[in-house]
Amino acid sequence: MLFRITLPGLLSLMTIYFFTLQSVDGQSVSVAEFNIRPDTYENVTPSIQKAIEFVQNNNKSTLIFPKGRYDFWPDGAIRAKYFVSNTSTEEEDSSKIKTIGMLFKNVKNLTIDGNGSLFIFHGKMTTIVLDQCENVVLKNIHVDFERPTMSEMRYTNVANKSVELEIHPDAKYDITNNQLIWHGEGWKTTHFHGVEFDTTLKTMRYSDWKVFDKSKATEIRPNLVRFETPENSKPKSGNILTVRDIIRDQVGMLILESKNITLEDVGMHYMHGLGIVSQYTENITMRRITCAPRPETKRIIASSADFMHFSGCSGKVTVLDCTFSGAHDDPINIHGTNLRYTQKLENNKLKLRFMHGQSYGFNAFFSGDSVAFVHSESMQRFANGRVKSVEKLSDREVVVTFENAVPEGLVTNDCVENMTRTPEVLIKGNYFTRTNTRGILLTTPRKAVVENNTFFRTGMSAILIEADAEGWFESGPVRNVTIRNNEFIDCAYQGGPGNAVIAINPSNKLADIKKPVHFNISIENNIFRTFDYPVLYAKSTQGLNFSNNTIIRTHELTAQSENKKMFYFNACSNVQISGTKMEGEVLGKNIKLDNMPKSNLKLSGKEKLTIE
Amino acid sequence: MLFRITLPGLLSLMTIYFFTLQSVDGQSVSVAEFNIRPDTYENVTPSIQKAIEFVQNNNKSTLIFPKGRYDFWPDGAIRAKYFVSNTSTEEEDSSKIKTIGMLFKNVKNLTIDGNGSLFIFHGKMTTIVLDQCENVVLKNIHVDFERPTMSEMRYTNVANKSVELEIHPDAKYDITNNQLIWHGEGWKTTHFHGVEFDTTLKTMRYSDWKVFDKSKATEIRPNLVRFETPENSKPKSGNILTVRDIIRDQVGMLILESKNITLEDVGMHYMHGLGIVSQYTENITMRRITCAPRPETKRIIASSADFMHFSGCSGKVTVLDCTFSGAHDDPINIHGTNLRYTQKLENNKLKLRFMHGQSYGFNAFFSGDSVAFVHSESMQRFANGRVKSVEKLSDREVVVTFENAVPEGLVTNDCVENMTRTPEVLIKGNYFTRTNTRGILLTTPRKAVVENNTFFRTGMSAILIEADAEGWFESGPVRNVTIRNNEFIDCAYQGGPGNAVIAINPSNKLADIKKPVHFNISIENNIFRTFDYPVLYAKSTQGLNFSNNTIIRTHELTAQSENKKMFYFNACSNVQISGTKMEGEVLGKNIKLDNMPKSNLKLSGKEKLTIE
Repeated sequence: MLFRITLPGLLSLMTIYFFTLQSVDGQSVSVAEFNIRPDTYENVTPSIQKAIEFVQNNNKSTLIFPKGRYDFWPDGAIRAKYFVSNTSTEEEDSSKIKTIGMLFKNVKNLTIDGNGSLFIFHGKMTTIVLDQCENVVLKNIHVDFERPTMSEMRYTNVANKSVELEIHPDAKYDITNNQLIWHGEGWKTTHFHGVEFDTTLKTMRYSDWKVFDKSKATEIRPNLVRFETPENSKPKSGNILTVRDIIRDQVGMLILESKNITLEDVGMHYMHGLGIVSQYTENITMRRITCAPRPETKRIIASSADFMHFSGCSGKVTVLDCTFSGAHDDPINIHGTNLRYTQKLENNKLKLRFMHGQSYGFNAFFSGDSVAFVHSESMQRFANGRVKSVEKLSDREVVVTFENAVPEGLVTNDCVENMTRTPEVLIKGNYFTRTNTRGILLTTPRKAVVENNTFFRTGMSAILIEADAEGWFESGPVRNVTIRNNEFIDCAYQGGPGNAVIAINPSNKLADIKKPVHFNISIENNIFRTFDYPVLYAKSTQGLNFSNNTIIRTHELTAQSENKKMFYFNACSNVQISGTKMEGEVLGKNIKLDNMPKSNLKLSGKEKLTIE
Repeated sequence: MLFRITLPGLLSLMTIYFFTLQSVDGQSVSVAEFNIRPDTYENVTPSIQKAIEFVQNNNKSTLIFPKGRYDFWPDGAIRAKYFVSNTSTEEEDSSKIKTIGMLFKNVKNLTIDGNGSLFIFHGKMTTIVLDQCENVVLKNIHVDFERPTMSEMRYTNVANKSVELEIHPDAKYDITNNQLIWHGEGWKTTHFHGVEFDTTLKTMRYSDWKVFDKSKATEIRPNLVRFETPENSKPKSGNILTVRDIIRDQVGMLILESKNITLEDVGMHYMHGLGIVSQYTENITMRRITCAPRPETKRIIASSADFMHFSGCSGKVTVLDCTFSGAHDDPINIHGTNLRYTQKLENNKLKLRFMHGQSYGFNAFFSGDSVAFVHSESMQRFANGRVKSVEKLSDREVVVTFENAVPEGLVTNDCVENMTRTPEVLIKGNYFTRTNTRGILLTTPRKAVVENNTFFRTGMSAILIEADAEGWFESGPVRNVTIRNNEFIDCAYQGGPGNAVIAINPSNKLADIKKPVHFNISIENNIFRTFDYPVLYAKSTQGLNFSNNTIIRTHELTAQSENKKMFYFNACSNVQISGTKMEGEVLGKNIKLDNMPKSNLKLSGKEKLTIE
């Protein structure tokens, strides 16, 4: 037989050759080899876990998903107990059991490439867990839920004593005994939390489901329900109410005690419980992550809490070119966890206790870690130490043995902060919008740079630097923060310390200029477009540089803050404001000082600011 | 301390006393004791299986469900292999694995009382299995699916080259690359089967999904999709198209090798694969069973195939006061299964084979069973035998050893019929409608009475007595059937043997009056309201009595049958037609005889019938 090979034919053959070469590359494995086919709508959870095991046991470098839709159901999922920072309470003990779509445990040197696939999760699930992994890249994946645990609905036909709710098609409900019930794939909403999105102003404000929970509901047609509401209830027609259950019984994604983890070109389009939680992990890069609903779903919320939550991380946390839109809490939250000293067992041995009801049970200290001893009331790191060994007494209590005796000055209720498990931070080129809380919550003692980001109408402060040894016990007074070249547009319309666009607000009870909590914060070359007075609120900070920023008045939102000061400093020292430019009818142009002499503030630049 | 007990107080105490007495009755167990609460929407499957085990291990007499909604998910369900008569093919081997909501195995003397509860199933599941149970009552339960595997849609806005489909809210779909995809909880429809319900005439006819499968689909709003259809495609606006996958990979309910089973006040509102399959079970009573959609769902179909399927049952099958509405196949089908003789191993030992691709693998012979040897072509039971032992060679083949040598006349391809596993039948007081096939398919050699039923517009014959040793290999020539006091309204508009309201149509190839298949069928005192010619078609029947029936012409449907004979007898003997009353412009009033002399027909009564 004779074959004639034409040039196009040869090119085709070459294409096939290269394609085959690629697909049979000994280092790559496709999930197709595990009888997993996209677009079948069938449950892939158990099969994919087998593929992961194969990849791990055979040291493959890439796990490939041919492009398509993959459905993950709880059926056949690995159930494992994980204590996740800032999730639900002790009373909900069963909620520590996570239902995991894909569990990577002790996996090293692996790229998971979705080729743009869509992973649809069902019920309440933790989509992906990386547990003690190293050098893992997750890329080209879109993650969403068939029925998010968020129920979205639009106000329409608002009348004197009634309102109709146009319910998003993805939000399943029943009406029983005239009462509307939100339910999903194996769950029902019982602890309601509501946030309303103003579709005109693009703002997010706390709202309430209570009025509807008690009102008579009648279905007019599928996904249109009329409520008989009290006379004073007049929601704004066209606005979208988003309602969820507050119990955080799963997380969006969990990256635990891992190293060198990269997420790249990943879309997290809905996450239940909490978002991507990185916990005690070293070096994480988030590049071109879209935390926002897929436009085609026409939903507006993509997470029931924070989008990216970093707790006890170290090395470097890098968040680059990401989009954050539609969260019921902070897009980025970076912190550690202070444990309270409750008992001295020996000279170098302390019993420590997790204090917040939602953050406990995880490994917070590792042998060799450097720690700081912190006076709770003043938030002063007054001495250092090094961990020798750790013994877990219970989910709430650990005994930590230090290499040397603990410092003399330690008093009951003082805290121990893990200084090793704190990260350098770079947050660059991201877009933040549609959240009722902050854009970034940031507390780390290492170098942190926040630059070239846009913050559009975050409900509270665009950037909040807190640090507390109370409340959430989120540790981490800062020493070196640079916030530069960002644009802030109409932020902090519904709260935040002093309603300020940038707020520095540690939890120390006594604001003493001699006992600063935070150090060296530089805010440079940013543009603040704002409708209200407050731009910056800072407390107990030593070394605060606000230079070459531009403040521009906007008019779409109405000024409302009780704090009518552009700058409000409390017990700060070495504060400089220089080169501030102002455009439009900027409000206040004033400075308030508490607990500090004027000598600690240096002003320069053309714009005249009044100290009040 | 002094207690004063007033009369109302005393009555309250007594009420509490009796209530407590009832709830702590030592013989009853509530699922509440297994932490199962109604109306939570949470998956109860694993917990209920624990309750069943407890009931069984502690010999409890009643398992109680407090009234409410219970959700059953595949997650945590028992998976077990069950070969079910008339279900899917060998190629789909995994489909033999059933995902079971509640499995009762070897359970005796138990009542399961749902108190009117609603059991909602998810995905593809077999709702309830009774396997080798005895004296079990299932009552006061409603069974439905969140997303039935049937997709229902209404034609609207029918135009020249387009039509819009109003999709039922329970039918989930996606549109990908302009093509509509039907999917559900873990599945996608690929082998399409369509039936159309005429909402004016209340008829069910075969239809097709193909035209839409290939047409461009555009979503106008959620659950309204426009299709660009070929010019000749003009569906009737307002009609409802119902589409399913033909693969029968689960069954509605399975009652297997059990004894004395009663279902009472049960609603089966959707069943996937096949309906309630009773297989090799002795004595079954179905009382006030509603096989129809719950009205509040506004669906029209309640099963993807037969509603009640009895295969190899014995003792007595009783179906009383039931409602059957909305099936893609027969509401009632009672039959055995003929196995083909393929090889004689010894004088008393035969290799037998299941012949139909969907019916195999189950136990069809038990030690001690009486059998008949049947000539396939003539359907003659020509000899009897008794089973000594059975050995399963494969899912398709068994070796049966008989107590005596098999008869001399046995030739290859003859069949063996299990005569022990045939039931007496009483079907009384039921209502049959909205099916594209028969009302009742009935073949048993024992006494069968079908009385006081109403058949409203069943697509094919209201009653079909078949018996075949080919095709489905459904055994069971009849010897004693009485069909009396029923009302038949406009049946057989889309098929059935001779388009007859009642059809007797065994599969014997040679219709020889000397070799009758069926015996002694009496059709008395029924009312036939019909728009068409055919009333009765009978083949190879000896002893056929059609007496004191009333035939009334109707006009809503149009006569269409090619068989324009009121009575059509083929190779029948001892046929009597007497006392027939007619009202209106009854069509035909004629009789056709094939393969039989007129002497085998006796006519009497006022109405003149022409023999043609």
